[in-house]
Amino acid sequence: MKLIIVRHGESEWNRLNLFTGWTDVELSEHGKQEAKSAGQLLKKEGYDFDVCYTSYLKRAIQTLNTILEEMDREWLPVKKSWLLNERHYGALQGLNKEETTKRFGQEQVQIWRRSYDILPPALSEDDGRNPRHQEQYREITKERLPLVESLKDTIERVIPYFEQNIMNDMKQGKRVIIAAHGNTIRALIKYLDRLSEKEIISVNIPTGIPLVYEFDEDFQVIRNYYLGDKDLIEEKTKKVADQANINKNQK
Amino acid sequence: MKLIIVRHGESEWNRLNLFTGWTDVELSEHGKQEAKSAGQLLKKEGYDFDVCYTSYLKRAIQTLNTILEEMDREWLPVKKSWLLNERHYGALQGLNKEETTKRFGQEQVQIWRRSYDILPPALSEDDGRNPRHQEQYREITKERLPLVESLKDTIERVIPYFEQNIMNDMKQGKRVIIAAHGNTIRALIKYLDRLSEKEIISVNIPTGIPLVYEFDEDFQVIRNYYLGDKDLIEEKTKKVADQANINKNQK
Repeated sequence: MKLIIVRHGESEWNRLNLFTGWTDVELSEHGKQEAKSAGQLLKKEGYDFDVCYTSYLKRAIQTLNTILEEMDREWLPVKKSWLLNERHYGALQGLNKEETTKRFGQEQVQIWRRSYDILPPALSEDDGRNPRHQEQYREITKERLPLVESLKDTIERVIPYFEQNIMNDMKQGKRVIIAAHGNTIRALIKYLDRLSEKEIISVNIPTGIPLVYEFDEDFQVIRNYYLGDKDLIEEKTKKVADQANINKNQK
Repeated sequence: MKLIIVRHGESEWNRLNLFTGWTDVELSEHGKQEAKSAGQLLKKEGYDFDVCYTSYLKRAIQTLNTILEEMDREWLPVKKSWLLNERHYGALQGLNKEETTKRFGQEQVQIWRRSYDILPPALSEDDGRNPRHQEQYREITKERLPLVESLKDTIERVIPYFEQNIMNDMKQGKRVIIAAHGNTIRALIKYLDRLSEKEIISVNIPTGIPLVYEFDEDFQVIRNYYLGDKDLIEEKTKKVADQANINKNQK
């Protein structure tokens, strides 16, 4: 049994080096190309799916749509959930990462970005970016919507959804693909690989590269690996790590 | 209460004047533009939805995706069903409409295209185009999949799905958009407007123009109308009618 997880292609705000979080930005041209390549690779390697999962954010939805287009699988069911959204970055959303480092100091920014349970500054209740005011989340109980999240919060949001929906589909024999975000995928990796809080923080996820998990009959992970060219994967992972100024290697 | 129905934009095979049916062809560049215009118009007119329906065919799925992109509503749930597919055109699929007319005579082709319950030649069981051999329909009980359909067959496939799913959502207060096909939409129009078998045959549906149905509390149709420029709608309807060599006006 296999599970495929893909981080969306480069977005416009990745390219501009802005904190994105729940901001609903477009894929860049490069990001669209990454999504196409992911779809072509999955097709070439003979992958197929029964059900697809993604978030409420268009960079993940468009990545999934493009993959399905390339695989000639646009008719597959797609389940979208806000619970697979990127980590909410609070008041940092929209700020340039370099400027933020200058303003708050590298150490503080590293703490916000790479600590497990420390919160960046939250959005104020009346901020237009507050998801409680946004159309996308109009069906969600307001109390459940965050104004900011730590990685821990994101994990606590993602994993119950994974267990109740995705794992449930897999246990019924369905082949699943998830198109999601850096920190959503970290949540899944921490859970599936049983990593410590410290270990997960130094894991960087390359954009647009399918990550394969293989399971045995008892739903234990046998192995995991990225699909595609090793050098490209390393280069992309390094690019993500460099954005965070952390040069540790991908696990 | 309103229901919005859109026929997909022009496909590559509409453009080449081929019988399409269940053949899974791409939108033409013009068709993609029609889908964009439909989305922009719906946004401008203040429409919004809670749930979206479409078929298993990419020309309808891509039309819906484009509309949602233009409306900034890509996060809405989309339900895809093969029961909303175009009428299955059997062995005529892939044939040029003009050539078919030369070969079988205009009268015979008119009967196939515009009669209510007469079947065109069916696909043979071992034909590669038989949906029973196609990946898209692998989850469907083989006996339910057609080798050819009359308009009557299409209606008998579409309406139970409409009643059990779409109408059910609407009765719960959900705002629905359907992106579908010429004959799927005819099925809905016949049902909603209580047209006779003879009346529905001369109704032509323009591509990419949102059709609005308004209902009262008892789910009775108050009125229906196309959105947008009257001349454009007339021109597009005439184009569809001309393809069929029937110059009757849209009801």
